[in-house]
Amino acid sequence: MSKKPKTAITPTREEDFPAWYQEVIKAADMAENAPVRGCMNIKPYGYALWENIQQIFDVWLKDYGVQNASFPVLIPVSFLEKEAEHVEGFAKECAVVTHHRLEADPEKGGLRPAPSAELEEPYVVRPTSETIIGDAMSRWIQSYRDLPMKLNQWGSVMRWEMRTRMFLRTAEFFWHEGHNAFKDADGAKGDCLHVLDLYEKFFREYLAIPGIKGIKTADERFPGAVETYCIESLMQDGKALQAATTHDLGQNFAKSCEIKFQDKDSTEKFVHTTSWAFSSRIIGAMIMMHADDDGMIMPPRVAPYQIKILPIIRDDADTDRVMTYANELKAKLKEMGLKAHLNDSDARTGDKIWGSVKKGVPLRVEIGGREVDDGTLTHVRRDIGRDSKTTCTMDEFTASVSGILDDIHDQLYARSLARQDAQMVEISGVNALDEHFEKGGLGLVKIDAALLDSAEYDAVKKKHSLTTRCLPFDSDGAKALVAKAY
Amino acid sequence: MSKKPKTAITPTREEDFPAWYQEVIKAADMAENAPVRGCMNIKPYGYALWENIQQIFDVWLKDYGVQNASFPVLIPVSFLEKEAEHVEGFAKECAVVTHHRLEADPEKGGLRPAPSAELEEPYVVRPTSETIIGDAMSRWIQSYRDLPMKLNQWGSVMRWEMRTRMFLRTAEFFWHEGHNAFKDADGAKGDCLHVLDLYEKFFREYLAIPGIKGIKTADERFPGAVETYCIESLMQDGKALQAATTHDLGQNFAKSCEIKFQDKDSTEKFVHTTSWAFSSRIIGAMIMMHADDDGMIMPPRVAPYQIKILPIIRDDADTDRVMTYANELKAKLKEMGLKAHLNDSDARTGDKIWGSVKKGVPLRVEIGGREVDDGTLTHVRRDIGRDSKTTCTMDEFTASVSGILDDIHDQLYARSLARQDAQMVEISGVNALDEHFEKGGLGLVKIDAALLDSAEYDAVKKKHSLTTRCLPFDSDGAKALVAKAY
Repeated sequence: MSKKPKTAITPTREEDFPAWYQEVIKAADMAENAPVRGCMNIKPYGYALWENIQQIFDVWLKDYGVQNASFPVLIPVSFLEKEAEHVEGFAKECAVVTHHRLEADPEKGGLRPAPSAELEEPYVVRPTSETIIGDAMSRWIQSYRDLPMKLNQWGSVMRWEMRTRMFLRTAEFFWHEGHNAFKDADGAKGDCLHVLDLYEKFFREYLAIPGIKGIKTADERFPGAVETYCIESLMQDGKALQAATTHDLGQNFAKSCEIKFQDKDSTEKFVHTTSWAFSSRIIGAMIMMHADDDGMIMPPRVAPYQIKILPIIRDDADTDRVMTYANELKAKLKEMGLKAHLNDSDARTGDKIWGSVKKGVPLRVEIGGREVDDGTLTHVRRDIGRDSKTTCTMDEFTASVSGILDDIHDQLYARSLARQDAQMVEISGVNALDEHFEKGGLGLVKIDAALLDSAEYDAVKKKHSLTTRCLPFDSDGAKALVAKAY
Repeated sequence: MSKKPKTAITPTREEDFPAWYQEVIKAADMAENAPVRGCMNIKPYGYALWENIQQIFDVWLKDYGVQNASFPVLIPVSFLEKEAEHVEGFAKECAVVTHHRLEADPEKGGLRPAPSAELEEPYVVRPTSETIIGDAMSRWIQSYRDLPMKLNQWGSVMRWEMRTRMFLRTAEFFWHEGHNAFKDADGAKGDCLHVLDLYEKFFREYLAIPGIKGIKTADERFPGAVETYCIESLMQDGKALQAATTHDLGQNFAKSCEIKFQDKDSTEKFVHTTSWAFSSRIIGAMIMMHADDDGMIMPPRVAPYQIKILPIIRDDADTDRVMTYANELKAKLKEMGLKAHLNDSDARTGDKIWGSVKKGVPLRVEIGGREVDDGTLTHVRRDIGRDSKTTCTMDEFTASVSGILDDIHDQLYARSLARQDAQMVEISGVNALDEHFEKGGLGLVKIDAALLDSAEYDAVKKKHSLTTRCLPFDSDGAKALVAKAY
């Protein structure tokens, strides 16, 4: 007989972090690998999370004056070629559309791209939209009156990555991409810093994700940018993850796409553009930051369901009154603007409880015949588990539930921040850096930025597969953060 | 000197309906042709309309128990081949991805698909997702407990149409695609009819679009469906437009994708699936149904802005108090849940008024120094024009504005319905059908369904470029609607 595992997820984080990560996604029913290389099918429970993220952040963008628009999923190859660094950065990982028709293959059977339908100029499935939006801006912007122009597109893009992992790195991924244009350099820089602040605040207040803001070094910049700003977050395994970026593109795309405006003084000038994004990989970050060996833990403010109501029916005669009581609770919570899900399936109670745990529903409510008799209910926090088991009246619960959810959020954030602080070490010299990782050390390692240009640093970086994450804002460019990273 | 045109749009509907259509889109700043064959850049004002449509209808779908999910933008060619009619229907108009990398072209310069990066199996940019969702369902559905499964995806798809027209027929278009699975044929049929009702109600209540529900004839069915249901709407030029469809796929995709479930009696059965959609072409329908020779008329309940506030400043000294008053009104309207836009640009008043007219903002409010003195404002309905010009106090306006917007909606709908009724003619025999169109007749022509199978009907259909739109529900299959169509 096989021994029952002590945790819902096998292997545990300790045993095999990457395998644990995949199992958490599977156990929470969030996504699966699609039959398209490197792509995902995002299942309803995973997609609901992304929808909640979109809905909340979209309002913030609109408050900032950003307008949503939509540009084609295909980009002409000649557009990609417009900006030298940009094409260098993306040409190697593009899905290329070469034909516009399939036909029966007379040799092998099945279908083949029809040779007579070969495109004169191939397209790529968009890896990012700077060039096609730049082209549009060259028509949409004429005068200083049109500036600033702030555009955003929610959608998916495709980069033919060789090694993929669900949510973290997939050939197709979901994101929003902001593309703004300004009269001058100050406008563009201010935009990058403002949006970075929005990201940091959104991640902190909604996803319970702390992060460190900084500037990318030249070799880590977005292809075509003059400056890239980022938020770096620390995962439970001590690796860093880039949670979001904003790019000051200077006049690079303005010049290559001919985006000019007539200023008040009637002179014609190139605009300064920016682009910025976070993507569905933030869901990967939420998993690697919050989940435990029993599965996902959803941050309450974006959770698909904040509360799972489980009717515990031990006697068929109880069914009606338990369900009535459970539905009453559900209706009250809905009225309060909370998302509650009532699991009324005929599955076993244990399976239902474990299902809720693995899906990471922040708060679980159990209602049985006795609770109905007493007008009570029992609730359990996902982040704490059975130690938080509390029985109270329904009124007490509805009065306290919002506070409990806020506390779960605060605790998730505090826990992640404490881990980040604990795993941030400052190290002097390249030898010490080598030693740190040689001994299996992890985390975000702070070194003097002056060391970055040395051949010794390059060697250590290569030896331990490290990357320079950023020059954190709080060091004013004097320090660099180095880490293993996703 | 050129004579000033009497209408904001040149040409008028009468003069050249297709050219008028393109000009309305341009004048309203809704979209433009993209530098990608047959694709659009949807500008913020056009995209806001689509977002409003999405947001409202998404709630309806969720109320019906539909869950959103996401599937890859690429589909393996072998998937398309699974269903014989389906591949026949879509293979001829697919964007085919054959390579995953670009490289420098040593002969011609620039970039070319890297020969070393040719895919073993090509992909197509999804023209529709039945096969890839069917594949997912084959894993996601195991037991009768998993049924019905109701999935929906908001996104874009691509069909390489040869003749494209913005919103109406574009290579890439936006839509939602619902894909549901049921235990039996009744479930699938019921789903198709229910969703068709939802569409009809949504179009009527939000887009002010009337339509006729019916069943498609076999040759007009969706490739792979056993039955296609539709809503046909009549445009101002007397042509029909298919506003939405629902498809009963029977067990065709269940069999080709192996979607089986274990029933309560432990036997294994194939599910019955459906799929259904409306797309961004509904925006084309809104234009061709509601707009006039002065431009767009937005149905108020989905309008990007319901009210345009125009400060009319004749004396610079008035600026502050007019703007304060206008902002006060804007704030009040926002508090009421209405979307008001205050045009505070330094453009000429006449241009601002015409801008609002061409964009089809349902209600325009003008505020000048005199209005501020009197505590009044002047408002004008877009659908009626200057004859509706009314001056009233701000309080009177806020008390009546919701009713006015409702009335605009009702009038738009009534006008379209009256036109549809007036242009619906019943004709006996194929000769009379020929004569009707020979004389330049248009509209929806009702004929006996028994005539459809005759060679004479085929000849007349071909001669006048007619299509059989549907067998309307209200005739119980006895009649067919024939029309020229988009």
